[in-house]
Amino acid sequence: MALSARNQLKGTVKSIKKDAIMAEVVVELPGGQEIVSVITTTSAETLGVSEGKEITVVIKSTEVMLSN
Amino acid sequence: MALSARNQLKGTVKSIKKDAIMAEVVVELPGGQEIVSVITTTSAETLGVSEGKEITVVIKSTEVMLSN
Amino acid sequence: MALSARNQLKGTVKSIKKDAIMAEVVVELPGGQEIVSVITTTSAETLGVSEGKEITVVIKSTEVMLSN
Amino acid sequence: MALSARNQLKGTVKSIKKDAIMAEVVVELPGGQEIVSVITTTSAETLGVSEGKEITVVIKSTEVMLSN
Amino acid sequence: MALSARNQLKGTVKSIKKDAIMAEVVVELPGGQEIVSVITTTSAETLGVSEGKEITVVIKSTEVMLSN
Amino acid sequence: MALSARNQLKGTVKSIKKDAIMAEVVVELPGGQEIVSVITTTSAETLGVSEGKEITVVIKSTEVMLSN
Repeated sequence: MALSARNQLKGTVKSIKKDAIMAEVVVELPGGQEIVSVITTTSAETLGVSEGKEITVVIKSTEVMLSN
Repeated sequence: MALSARNQLKGTVKSIKKDAIMAEVVVELPGGQEIVSVITTTSAETLGVSEGKEITVVIKSTEVMLSN
Repeated sequence: MALSARNQLKGTVKSIKKDAIMAEVVVELPGGQEIVSVITTTSAETLGVSEGKEITVVIKSTEVMLSN
Repeated sequence: MALSARNQLKGTVKSIKKDAIMAEVVVELPGGQEIVSVITTTSAETLGVSEGKEITVVIKSTEVMLSN
Repeated sequence: MALSARNQLKGTVKSIKKDAIMAEVVVELPGGQEIVSVITTTSAETLGVSEGKEITVVIKSTEVMLSN
Repeated sequence: MALSARNQLKGTVKSIKKDAIMAEVVVELPGGQEIVSVITTTSAETLGVSEGKEITVVIKSTEVMLSN
């Protein structure tokens, strides 16, 4: 599947926390920085997200801000 | 300024392309991966975005997807 | 590629309009309704978006509103 | 109310799941495809979202990605 | 039309700038603060957005960040 | 920190409601209108969000819709 979202960063799941509806997943990038993703618990379970799993973070470019 | 957006990744501007309304900025992260940001041209100019500039990429967690 | 974004609707590209940075793509769904996608022109060209092409529309659930 | 969000798809609520803050609503479109919406529980209750209800799904065009 | 997006702020259009695809609209709120909206030019024209027009700004709650 | 997000509105926290993952914060603007923000509970606690606190609401322009 080729996706229009141009931001696709490989990383490793560092932690996952879930409640009934939403899940919060912390992903560590190769450079040591972290990205937090908030998705539905259903999606997290369908993808089989678990600690230590290699995963790709995906972000639409129009959602990315910059700061000095 | 402390911001609720938990994703704040440091990088360097690799390229910038602008038209009347929108600008597309490519940022290189320390690990070598890239992130594309689409912001208004006004914002890019206010921040002084230019090639080689050190910059921080900011993303709200609810905008971050995951994929296998 | 399995993606956490749970909204993946199949359709056909009805029209595409591009400028230097952004592209606007109208997709027709099987039920006859239409979805408009605004992505970067670079993404549209990388995906080879053109009229008549079968394509999948992808939307993160947290971006979907409801109305009466 | 006329809204700038150009994606307004009619459908029927198939299921709803709520916790204290967030609600997840599955909507079935006429063509048989489904869309998941994550909104606040307060919004879901204010709109009176319930199974079988006819509803309109609303999405801003800049939130819509494409994939092959 | 009742909409799940809970942020609906009344204001007045202060300026509008358009190119082929995207439009940038500055809205002044009653308290004197401003909000910038980036929508498609097609949407801006369909809504008849023009300087001095009274308009409502609409934002999904999950898109709103906070900062100190 | 200068941020590309051009919408930065000052207000006062009117209420906050939290569960394990997500928090819902209602902010009152000087003109009397309200904005609801949904962020992670971790972010809300890191920022020290509490009733009566002066806070800034931040929104990326591409997330702002308009309606008549």
